[in-house]
Amino acid sequence: MVERERPAGLREKKKQATRHALFEAAVRLAAEHGAQQVTVEAISERAGVSPRTFFNYFRSREDAFVMSDPEVGERIRQAVREAPAERSALDVLRDAMAEQIAGMELDRELWSLVALVLSRSPELTSRLLSLQAEEERALAEAFTARLRDQGRDGPRAQLYAWLLASLSAAATRVAMTQWYEHSGTEAFPDIFHQVFDQLAAGLAHPVDES
Amino acid sequence: MVERERPAGLREKKKQATRHALFEAAVRLAAEHGAQQVTVEAISERAGVSPRTFFNYFRSREDAFVMSDPEVGERIRQAVREAPAERSALDVLRDAMAEQIAGMELDRELWSLVALVLSRSPELTSRLLSLQAEEERALAEAFTARLRDQGRDGPRAQLYAWLLASLSAAATRVAMTQWYEHSGTEAFPDIFHQVFDQLAAGLAHPVDES
Repeated sequence: MVERERPAGLREKKKQATRHALFEAAVRLAAEHGAQQVTVEAISERAGVSPRTFFNYFRSREDAFVMSDPEVGERIRQAVREAPAERSALDVLRDAMAEQIAGMELDRELWSLVALVLSRSPELTSRLLSLQAEEERALAEAFTARLRDQGRDGPRAQLYAWLLASLSAAATRVAMTQWYEHSGTEAFPDIFHQVFDQLAAGLAHPVDES
Repeated sequence: MVERERPAGLREKKKQATRHALFEAAVRLAAEHGAQQVTVEAISERAGVSPRTFFNYFRSREDAFVMSDPEVGERIRQAVREAPAERSALDVLRDAMAEQIAGMELDRELWSLVALVLSRSPELTSRLLSLQAEEERALAEAFTARLRDQGRDGPRAQLYAWLLASLSAAATRVAMTQWYEHSGTEAFPDIFHQVFDQLAAGLAHPVDES
């Protein structure tokens, strides 16, 4: 089984590298010329692929600037749906997200360019928000289905499902902010896990430095 | 003391009523004509106040559509700074927010118009986001200061402060969504408290229906 899985892993890594190259090209071009001026052709050329290939990775021109990858959300939801019922939903969410984050290349300079590009383009900010809202709803529905399978489908279960979905975005954002502010001292995945440790411990007090 | 505070309470209620009338006028006019077409004069006229009065309530034309009230954030931060050290920071946040929410008039039809107006105006969505980011940073700083006074100023304390600040927005949004979906069966403040009960209990499982 391991033998057969290896090529798929390699293919997946190559796909992620191409997606990242397109994202980086889009963001650097937008920082130089303004997002409005940047065409799919220019992004593809800088990333060394054809415009047709571009649309294998992104649904629209706009999505490249915010690195929207519909597959990431779907993989997280699949992990949520398939996780054993006895596992804590928060742990399930953390592990599913951590697996996706592990593949992310984080580059402070690039992310500050993303922030710059978004601050100059209300259209892109708005697109990012509506993508996030779609993802949040889909993730809440995955948790709702999981809870229903466990015989929980009252309003409290629904509130819990939505809270988890909403926290997935909040946790990522908080981890990004902290990583950005203390760059170099701690790796992003470690900070990401600290956020989930804090959520699991409740929020009455900060968890101690370990 | 009670005698002297009463007029201030009345004044505060009158101010909130005027702010709400301006917000409602802005949103209804924007839903009819598009936010871009709506002037401060038109908003003020529909709310029955002068354009000069408008600027006692909102820093800019745009802020009226998203009902940005800088005083709300400042009152929450003041409550955070002044709360006794032995109280759980999450409880402090919940009570400070609940006090501000108690004064909100909630009207489903009006909030669905707000969603419509925002969905049609990337500029307003972007303005709302940057206002929220300002509020989040200021609230995180209030929690950081509170923790520093308690002798906690390591990276974990900072992460905790930012997480609380980020949750204040996430909790409100989740409570709004749930209130919107189950309108009529439960009051908004009750749902808001349920969200905080769930956060305080940790997030391993949904808290039971009571």
